Amino acid sequence: MVTARVQIVDVAPRDGLQSDAVMFTTEQKLELIRRIEAAGIDRIEVASFVHPGRVPQMADAEAVFAGLSARVPGNGMPSELQRSPRGNDKAASHIGLVLNERGFDRALAANVGEINVVVAVTDEFSQANQAMSTDESIAAASIVMRRAAEHGIPVSVTLSVAFGCPFIGEVSVDRVLGVVHRIATKGPSEIALADTIGCAVPVAVRGLISAVSDCIDPAIHLRAHFHNTRNSGLANALAAVESGVRVIDASLGGIGGCPFAPRATGNIPTEDLVYLLHRSGYETGVSLERLLAASGWLESELGHPVPSLVAKAGPFPM
Amino acid sequence: MVTARVQIVDVAPRDGLQSDAVMFTTEQKLELIRRIEAAGIDRIEVASFVHPGRVPQMADAEAVFAGLSARVPGNGMPSELQRSPRGNDKAASHIGLVLNERGFDRALAANVGEINVVVAVTDEFSQANQAMSTDESIAAASIVMRRAAEHGIPVSVTLSVAFGCPFIGEVSVDRVLGVVHRIATKGPSEIALADTIGCAVPVAVRGLISAVSDCIDPAIHLRAHFHNTRNSGLANALAAVESGVRVIDASLGGIGGCPFAPRATGNIPTEDLVYLLHRSGYETGVSLERLLAASGWLESELGHPVPSLVAKAGPFPM
Repeated sequence: MVTARVQIVDVAPRDGLQSDAVMFTTEQKLELIRRIEAAGIDRIEVASFVHPGRVPQMADAEAVFAGLSARVPGNGMPSELQRSPRGNDKAASHIGLVLNERGFDRALAANVGEINVVVAVTDEFSQANQAMSTDESIAAASIVMRRAAEHGIPVSVTLSVAFGCPFIGEVSVDRVLGVVHRIATKGPSEIALADTIGCAVPVAVRGLISAVSDCIDPAIHLRAHFHNTRNSGLANALAAVESGVRVIDASLGGIGGCPFAPRATGNIPTEDLVYLLHRSGYETGVSLERLLAASGWLESELGHPVPSLVAKAGPFPM
Repeated sequence: MVTARVQIVDVAPRDGLQSDAVMFTTEQKLELIRRIEAAGIDRIEVASFVHPGRVPQMADAEAVFAGLSARVPGNGMPSELQRSPRGNDKAASHIGLVLNERGFDRALAANVGEINVVVAVTDEFSQANQAMSTDESIAAASIVMRRAAEHGIPVSVTLSVAFGCPFIGEVSVDRVLGVVHRIATKGPSEIALADTIGCAVPVAVRGLISAVSDCIDPAIHLRAHFHNTRNSGLANALAAVESGVRVIDASLGGIGGCPFAPRATGNIPTEDLVYLLHRSGYETGVSLERLLAASGWLESELGHPVPSLVAKAGPFPM
């Protein structure tokens, strides 16, 4: 049996920190990113280029990317963290989130490695989160994809509230497919299905992934993003992987949420996902031990407990 | 498509309370049981007949059962709680946990409706938890089953640390099957596979359930018991249900653990399990709304937050 490889995108520096009451300095963010990379995570969503008035935690997006660009791999890191367990020095890919062309221009100037653009599949959530309709958001994402293509920058499109919306409730598969069809022709390298408010269950995950897989070019990767709001986030992530998705978002410690999604709690914790995947026979390239060390550091910097349970109980076997 | 029915056994009054720092009075326990029943749960593990020096929280087991026997259904309950959403007054079945014949004699005198006897599948855990080897525990369980049969009392046998042991680590399927074979011939009405320390993942759950199902008389029901120690408890419960198990343990609020299992955290929260099962198309006969009300009451009586996430976020659609 060939072991399947699952790639984890750590979103703690962006989705995680943006809704934490504690505001990290740029230096703290850079240290967080360094520690996540040192655990073997090779894609990290590090900042968003959105209006600083709306998301003050992300106001230093340019400074974060400047800090990352300035860094010589391994430079300034404690020696035990200089090599990833993959045994190479390949730097992780750093993702900047944008919502429109203005954000894209900032991301381009900041020299981002990858762009993630968000489209909410319901108008109600899109208006609340991005002050535009879904149609307007698709148009904005299309411009971003075209501009990014000119510069050779890969673009992921995250479809938010794909499993349910806090304003309208249930979201049908057909509604999501309608948005997928319009996005897929615009050249995304990846489409992410996001359970922004943590209401999905595995049967819905399997159904949506199967429907989306059936209708897009297999060259477009599928990614999935879950929150553990109602305690089914880990079950959903496993269901996505078992349905063929090979890229899963998670956040170190399980910090995060969305300031515009009522009562959304944290992302699924990276360390809990890695524990689950490794024990299930999947390979991630991540060192759980280093991840737990990074999570312990994060918790002490935040000054409050993080939601991860593996961070609390430790791995098994012990 | 016929909707499958899953029965939930709430273990909060026993497995939940026994490891909480807060000691409930007998009256508080009776009120907890009443509220769980009023939500439609029809089997509840209400007490254990073990040495009060070892588990002081369970010292009032006789008083709890006396309080339940004395109760006329509906009597003393707030009127809105008098009927279960199943629309009948059938009282729930009250389970007493025992570890040996002495416990059984107490349970018999207390007029329990059902017995649950625990056998740890590793000697190391069995010695730590029950001060006897697995062989001695199987012998004790066999005596309990014989005695109970004479009185027409159904007996469940819970196999603890069936997915991993804090002392020896991995537990093989063969080791569990060996114990299952010896128990199955002694007349249990049900065998429960327990992930006592919360280390299982769905692939292991599916594997063990399939192996056990293949080798026991189908007249013996299978039950599964999970802890959410490493955040995979809900995924495990769903995996068990999808593998054909129709009885799942959970505890209101997700309280509980085991004082003898190092770092074991709570059982899977009943309300989170009900949310997951209902959204997955299973029927439970339980009212999530009443369960959440009961959970809110429990949290206020305990004076500390409970681990349930649905209790915090609320159901969906909202």
